[in-house]
Amino acid sequence: MSSTKTTEIAALGEFGLIDRLTKQLGRRHATTLYGAGDDAAVIDLGDEVLLISCDMLSEGIDFDLRYFAPKLLGYKAVVRGINDIVAMNAHAEQIVVALGVSAKISVEFLDELYEGIEHACKQYNVDLVGGDTTSTLNGMTISITAIGRAKREDVVYRTGAQEHDLICISANLGAAYMGLHLLERESRVLSDIDNPEPKFAGNEYLLERYLKPRARIDIIEALAEAGIRPTSMIDLSDGLASDLRQICRSSKCGARIYLERIPIARQTTALAEEMNIDPVIAALNGGEDHELLFTVPLSMQEKIQSLQMVDIIGHITSEQSGVTLVTPDGEAIALKAPAFDR
Amino acid sequence: MSSTKTTEIAALGEFGLIDRLTKQLGRRHATTLYGAGDDAAVIDLGDEVLLISCDMLSEGIDFDLRYFAPKLLGYKAVVRGINDIVAMNAHAEQIVVALGVSAKISVEFLDELYEGIEHACKQYNVDLVGGDTTSTLNGMTISITAIGRAKREDVVYRTGAQEHDLICISANLGAAYMGLHLLERESRVLSDIDNPEPKFAGNEYLLERYLKPRARIDIIEALAEAGIRPTSMIDLSDGLASDLRQICRSSKCGARIYLERIPIARQTTALAEEMNIDPVIAALNGGEDHELLFTVPLSMQEKIQSLQMVDIIGHITSEQSGVTLVTPDGEAIALKAPAFDR
Repeated sequence: MSSTKTTEIAALGEFGLIDRLTKQLGRRHATTLYGAGDDAAVIDLGDEVLLISCDMLSEGIDFDLRYFAPKLLGYKAVVRGINDIVAMNAHAEQIVVALGVSAKISVEFLDELYEGIEHACKQYNVDLVGGDTTSTLNGMTISITAIGRAKREDVVYRTGAQEHDLICISANLGAAYMGLHLLERESRVLSDIDNPEPKFAGNEYLLERYLKPRARIDIIEALAEAGIRPTSMIDLSDGLASDLRQICRSSKCGARIYLERIPIARQTTALAEEMNIDPVIAALNGGEDHELLFTVPLSMQEKIQSLQMVDIIGHITSEQSGVTLVTPDGEAIALKAPAFDR
Repeated sequence: MSSTKTTEIAALGEFGLIDRLTKQLGRRHATTLYGAGDDAAVIDLGDEVLLISCDMLSEGIDFDLRYFAPKLLGYKAVVRGINDIVAMNAHAEQIVVALGVSAKISVEFLDELYEGIEHACKQYNVDLVGGDTTSTLNGMTISITAIGRAKREDVVYRTGAQEHDLICISANLGAAYMGLHLLERESRVLSDIDNPEPKFAGNEYLLERYLKPRARIDIIEALAEAGIRPTSMIDLSDGLASDLRQICRSSKCGARIYLERIPIARQTTALAEEMNIDPVIAALNGGEDHELLFTVPLSMQEKIQSLQMVDIIGHITSEQSGVTLVTPDGEAIALKAPAFDR
């Protein structure tokens, strides 16, 4: 390395790294409409635009092979990729998969991984069109590139939220986070036992939310059918607090969300309490929900409510007001970036 | 893992894994023109097509951070991505970069990596339009998705080689392979010495071929200008033997190449002999040349020769004749898949 000064990546904070790395990007093609900074890049095709997103999953960080059967891992990787395109208000049509595999991975494992990939592709009407396989010294890496098309005017960015817009989410939050905690607990408890029988009864919902998230194509289709165009949208992958802050940062606005309006599933609350975890923390900072967070104009309130598919959890404010969470007793708490505050 | 039988990936042989994993892919979108099996996937855009390729590089396998300054690594990763599009006879316009980085990687390292990425993007007129960064437990992973556009009739696949076509290559071979061997030798020799001074004098060309390969946009532009449309083309990444076999397999043909026509640089031969490596093996099986291997109709012989940019090393034969190398004394040797014969 030619540098003498070294800075840990975490020191740059929540949005620091991507900003720093992409600040001086050239824009050489008129077809490059939108580069880094959203769920997907946008490329001009004339009447339509092309959407491209890339998502990398790393063993031991993003997934643990003790918890994921290869089929589920392949399925989830594809769903994550598709949801990046869905979060632009578009349908994914193709994906490309690059795999890095260590010597411990067998052909049969990859067969099953591809079965899961193909299962998700079939369910969500996507074609797997290519990929690359390389070796790794240890640990598996999966990189999914998802490709979609949309009419230019249909694309929803993170940048369009306006003051007074309603903030909506497509499902209860924190369930995936508790699903992961459950898997980790059972793994710890049973690590010294022969023929372990993990206690998952009653918590299958949480496991499913973590292991087998959905691509919310149904949401963008329902919104389109109801004539509701979101003003901004993001895939909920880092947790509500971080992803809402991302929208506010991109849209140069603030937000006010209400704690009692954030839906948390009964099972999430029950397991969180059993494990001495604050269910609100799970919902705000848990991440991996892979649901949609979006904003719509205030005038759409009735239409949104009549869909009965999404929850309105607050509204967009001026940038000066910051991003705040209002508790049931009326206290307004500034929402911080979770990953860098813990 | 739910499988009981496990097979090592290497046991499937040269083309086995990709075939096995992609054999049952669905094709759900009419826009999906061509999926796995070439340097890039091809997606219908109407008059034009979109080309998408994905290339993953893994630390310790595809690169060693003792040899690559971060700028060079970023540069090479981009060139590899671009060359996958060039090998379809098209220009890359955008790239997406996904990075997996371990805790040992500093912000300054990533700054320099991105400098190299941007340098290659600028040189080859490509926009970096997005990406993803994730952590890894150890080892760095770089995944480059390259995107290009071309007229549908201009795209050159691996499948179009015809009997009697001429087989052409865009540069001498084996230099990158010897460059890597030189880096490895100096690293071994100097590992116990303080302030080591590696002996690279006279071999800078080999190092450059390994560390800083070119994107051969000049070749496809010169061919287009001369009115020569290759019948098949591939990026020389796995070595001449393997990549020629790939073309023959995709085109259902054989090939006959002549040893004395394969260009090998003086420095490659000299260092190979010094290190007791057969320079022919370096040229045939070395890999990482990142030059173009392509075929043109026999009628183009004069035009190709007058370009003075490429070497004709043989011709396409019937499938039954197999893929053979003819030695100066007239012996015909079957070309095997190097990676699985060693």
